[in-house]
Amino acid sequence: MDTGLSPGSLRAAHVQSMRVYWEDTDAGGVVFYANYLKYFERARTEWLRALGFSQETLRLHADPAQRAMFVVTDTQVRYLRPARLDDWIEVNVEVLRAGAASLEIRQQATRQLELLAAGTIRIGCVAPDTMRPRRMPDSLQQALARQACDPLNPI
Amino acid sequence: MDTGLSPGSLRAAHVQSMRVYWEDTDAGGVVFYANYLKYFERARTEWLRALGFSQETLRLHADPAQRAMFVVTDTQVRYLRPARLDDWIEVNVEVLRAGAASLEIRQQATRQLELLAAGTIRIGCVAPDTMRPRRMPDSLQQALARQACDPLNPI
Amino acid sequence: MDTGLSPGSLRAAHVQSMRVYWEDTDAGGVVFYANYLKYFERARTEWLRALGFSQETLRLHADPAQRAMFVVTDTQVRYLRPARLDDWIEVNVEVLRAGAASLEIRQQATRQLELLAAGTIRIGCVAPDTMRPRRMPDSLQQALARQACDPLNPI
Amino acid sequence: MDTGLSPGSLRAAHVQSMRVYWEDTDAGGVVFYANYLKYFERARTEWLRALGFSQETLRLHADPAQRAMFVVTDTQVRYLRPARLDDWIEVNVEVLRAGAASLEIRQQATRQLELLAAGTIRIGCVAPDTMRPRRMPDSLQQALARQACDPLNPI
Repeated sequence: MDTGLSPGSLRAAHVQSMRVYWEDTDAGGVVFYANYLKYFERARTEWLRALGFSQETLRLHADPAQRAMFVVTDTQVRYLRPARLDDWIEVNVEVLRAGAASLEIRQQATRQLELLAAGTIRIGCVAPDTMRPRRMPDSLQQALARQACDPLNPI
Repeated sequence: MDTGLSPGSLRAAHVQSMRVYWEDTDAGGVVFYANYLKYFERARTEWLRALGFSQETLRLHADPAQRAMFVVTDTQVRYLRPARLDDWIEVNVEVLRAGAASLEIRQQATRQLELLAAGTIRIGCVAPDTMRPRRMPDSLQQALARQACDPLNPI
Repeated sequence: MDTGLSPGSLRAAHVQSMRVYWEDTDAGGVVFYANYLKYFERARTEWLRALGFSQETLRLHADPAQRAMFVVTDTQVRYLRPARLDDWIEVNVEVLRAGAASLEIRQQATRQLELLAAGTIRIGCVAPDTMRPRRMPDSLQQALARQACDPLNPI
Repeated sequence: MDTGLSPGSLRAAHVQSMRVYWEDTDAGGVVFYANYLKYFERARTEWLRALGFSQETLRLHADPAQRAMFVVTDTQVRYLRPARLDDWIEVNVEVLRAGAASLEIRQQATRQLELLAAGTIRIGCVAPDTMRPRRMPDSLQQALARQACDPLNPI
């Protein structure tokens, strides 16, 4: 079984680097665990941007019928080692499953070769005004399908 | 001159108590200074609710012409003593000035008789869709004017 | 199987009420999903306080050998319905398992009878200076064991 | 008078670029104002790093007598225009005054040529264990003095 707990997967669709700042830490002297969800989100945003999609553009599309917004429906995260102020970490994005209206993403935060946190995030696509599920725009579905069907990621 | 630096003003329009949690602290072991702006905001929200006004109701009013949202335009805060995890603190709200489309509020965070942080917050009222300034609803203006003109608060 | 997805469990060891403020929301108009981890944490903190334990006192104990800190090692959360600004929500705490150096807690956020989010949180006890696992203080272990073994909570 | 309200000062000691993510926004659809303090802090951290100083190294120095931590004592911020999800913004750092144990910094957040927020931040240096004021390490004082005394910044 692939536990997702070996760092630096070859299959990553995107890797985003970021710094740990004061805002991220708590009185334990390390990154507050809930903030890994923010780190994962940042990496997904940059990954979608690298694919050519801005979430703000999707959300505020001139044609209301075209508007789409992602909502996170499920998160599972293991916190393995603490990150600290000033650390430079990398967060990857790996597409486990890409459906018409939903996504399943595996993500890891690493510091050099150390795995800090690993998780699986499920995401749905909704209409921003009603919060009801809707299919993603075709161009986005196609871009995601190419990533999920990559020979290096045959899920 | 009233520096606002003596805790426990008699003129407070509202006092809100709250606990310091892990999320609020940073690696220095104390509350991250930016979070006092959150504490001040929570106290203002509860103060408006005590006056009978829900910001969510104002923002999403069925009649778009009636929609109103507050935006913070200016904050000045002095951080005097650190608050720590598990502290129970009080945050007050004092109306310095209440105009038709703007407000100036003085706020203090205290722990028992110790002053932790003190600030002045300026707020404008805007239309949520355009972010352009608009007058507050009449009922809200009147409620605020009564607080600013209270004999105990003759500004 | 008990999925934890029926709100208002009779087995809750603690229920904590809280308000949704501006700081909690995101541009989707609803509570940012990562913030449910903060809500769950607040409820656990108040639950421990109700049992007589302050985390700050445990972390900064005069005797370094007695110092203890909780670290979250695993979080699984499902986000079911959005909470909005001004909502008044309840977050419960249910002890699934209480070991000598770890805890497994089930938590739900509800708004009246609606279930908003539900999750399982695993927590370890560490020495604050070394971040190495350590047994919880005996008095805390005993207090937790009573909750996990309560006739209303026979797990 | 230099109000600090013309963007893109020539006198900036450092400019840091960053993206606006979901975590930064609120239900108004724009960046939550308190988060500009986080943006300013990130820029100051990267500025100190560019000068050769890691705050984590200063805070956790092997010799307790050498340990130093910065605490923010005063913040004044004007919020002029809203930033939105996916915006790419620049935050600068300008040294107004560098003393032996304190600093006064002017900062601006801009999006292309638009000024979004501008503020002045006062910072003190303390011993992390006691939170009492202490002089900054000599090497840091000297590095800061060079920036404050730059011919382009003759304050």
